[in-house]
Amino acid sequence: MTNTTVSTDTSGLGGGLLPSWRQTPTRQSIIDFVDAVADPESPEYVEESERVAVFDNDGTLWTEQPLYAQLAFALDRATQLGQPTTLDDLHAGGMNALKDLIALTHSGVTTDEFDDLCRSWLSSARHPRFDRPYPATAYQPMLELLALLDEHAFSCWIFSGGGTDFMRTWAPEVYGLPPHRVIGSVGETEFRIGSTGPELVKSPKIQVLDDGPHKPESIHRHVGQRPILAAGNTDGDLAMLQWTAGSPHRTLQMFVHHTDAEREYAYDRDPTLGSGTDQIMSAATEHDWTVVDMASDWATIYPSGS
Amino acid sequence: MTNTTVSTDTSGLGGGLLPSWRQTPTRQSIIDFVDAVADPESPEYVEESERVAVFDNDGTLWTEQPLYAQLAFALDRATQLGQPTTLDDLHAGGMNALKDLIALTHSGVTTDEFDDLCRSWLSSARHPRFDRPYPATAYQPMLELLALLDEHAFSCWIFSGGGTDFMRTWAPEVYGLPPHRVIGSVGETEFRIGSTGPELVKSPKIQVLDDGPHKPESIHRHVGQRPILAAGNTDGDLAMLQWTAGSPHRTLQMFVHHTDAEREYAYDRDPTLGSGTDQIMSAATEHDWTVVDMASDWATIYPSGS
Repeated sequence: MTNTTVSTDTSGLGGGLLPSWRQTPTRQSIIDFVDAVADPESPEYVEESERVAVFDNDGTLWTEQPLYAQLAFALDRATQLGQPTTLDDLHAGGMNALKDLIALTHSGVTTDEFDDLCRSWLSSARHPRFDRPYPATAYQPMLELLALLDEHAFSCWIFSGGGTDFMRTWAPEVYGLPPHRVIGSVGETEFRIGSTGPELVKSPKIQVLDDGPHKPESIHRHVGQRPILAAGNTDGDLAMLQWTAGSPHRTLQMFVHHTDAEREYAYDRDPTLGSGTDQIMSAATEHDWTVVDMASDWATIYPSGS
Repeated sequence: MTNTTVSTDTSGLGGGLLPSWRQTPTRQSIIDFVDAVADPESPEYVEESERVAVFDNDGTLWTEQPLYAQLAFALDRATQLGQPTTLDDLHAGGMNALKDLIALTHSGVTTDEFDDLCRSWLSSARHPRFDRPYPATAYQPMLELLALLDEHAFSCWIFSGGGTDFMRTWAPEVYGLPPHRVIGSVGETEFRIGSTGPELVKSPKIQVLDDGPHKPESIHRHVGQRPILAAGNTDGDLAMLQWTAGSPHRTLQMFVHHTDAEREYAYDRDPTLGSGTDQIMSAATEHDWTVVDMASDWATIYPSGS
């Protein structure tokens, strides 16, 4: 599946590969890696069936500031349900307030109903700063990376702390992935025969929180293979990158560093709920992982015309 | 991926499709279904991306008598670990005895170590009646069905009550499936950085028991799409078949009935641990699902030359 927003213009930036990536060592490290593992003549050649690439989503493939899109959805839905909640309420209430919000807005409906709710919200919601639909805040350079990998027979997967069901309503189309390769956190569902037939009802109970050490565990459970490329942007992605680096094959570990206050956001800590970046930045330096400096490495941030 | 044990001989049985299936209405119902959903001219045409087929494993794709292969593995391993256990011990001890056996034999090792243990056991273990390796007790007619579906752009998945990690050591090769499409029950794993690098250690705690109503829940979590074909052999597969039947598309629900004491086993109840067949047989009759009578519908049971 190809993503129609990826530019196929091979002029301008030289070579035509990854056209939204400036010609820095970062871009070169990606091209060198793909060359090494995809060239049958290369001593580091990896069989197509083993070319597994895993990506965090929030802050790695799309913008996560000023708040996660899924959180914006939850806050809007809470209001619709007569229980308006603010970010301050969440900060004050901590993890329990978040769990209550998720329970209120993500359960008690069928999976089909939830899918409709998400799609409806996404069609009208706009990013508060960039005034575009949230799916249009996916990073053009990362879309090009996904397409490049797909062209070289990689299977790309998302392993996100965000919700699987929320992501599957927009991510397959935006990233060119089948739903089964979009994996995140999941609440339990309950199968039952309802009045209109069999259905799955979303429960408030969290089944898997797909973050930190749970990411490699999820990768094992879902993929059954070790990745050779991993990309993330916070400490919650460290284990996933460490797991990938332990592969016997040549691997690429990528840390996406938010350095661009002008075109996106510059931060080293997820201010809402998530983890920091001290550990992943240290590891990236220690192990010479690929660090994406968004301000200097990316010629453009977002797809045009959205 | 094609399974090399599937016969490509197009002579003899007429038409060449599903050569190990006798020309009964059962075989015809499969061919009619595939024709209907794969023919772009058909009013029941289904896009390739939506052709999802799900299969139980034990008793549906391979023999599960006189005991599950994975149970035989566990009993052998318990003996190796100095805690010999018999089937009688398990019957006497019930679910707790089974959980203890699983904890003893399926945890406290890394996923890589467990993979090695399974492969080692499978290479020497023999089915006590048929004296062939357990993977060679896969059903030739079902291998042909998997190949036929694969040729028509279906993505075939296994959703089994058996262990994912155990199955992934042999099922991908036997059934022609990538590991990510072999799904079963899972214990928790724990990510850690060990002495030789990052590893996942198998924990005794069951994370998902992939049976009964949990099968549609697993399908939702792993596939993110509703199947249009489902096959099973016990009441533990009923929910999966009901879930599939609820699709808006034309679907096929298949119940594999063990009627062949001479060439395999004739039973309506899994005598070791699992569920019966009363409910699934009633549903198959009520909803006119496809019932495979192994004695009359299958010209051969096992692949030759194993």
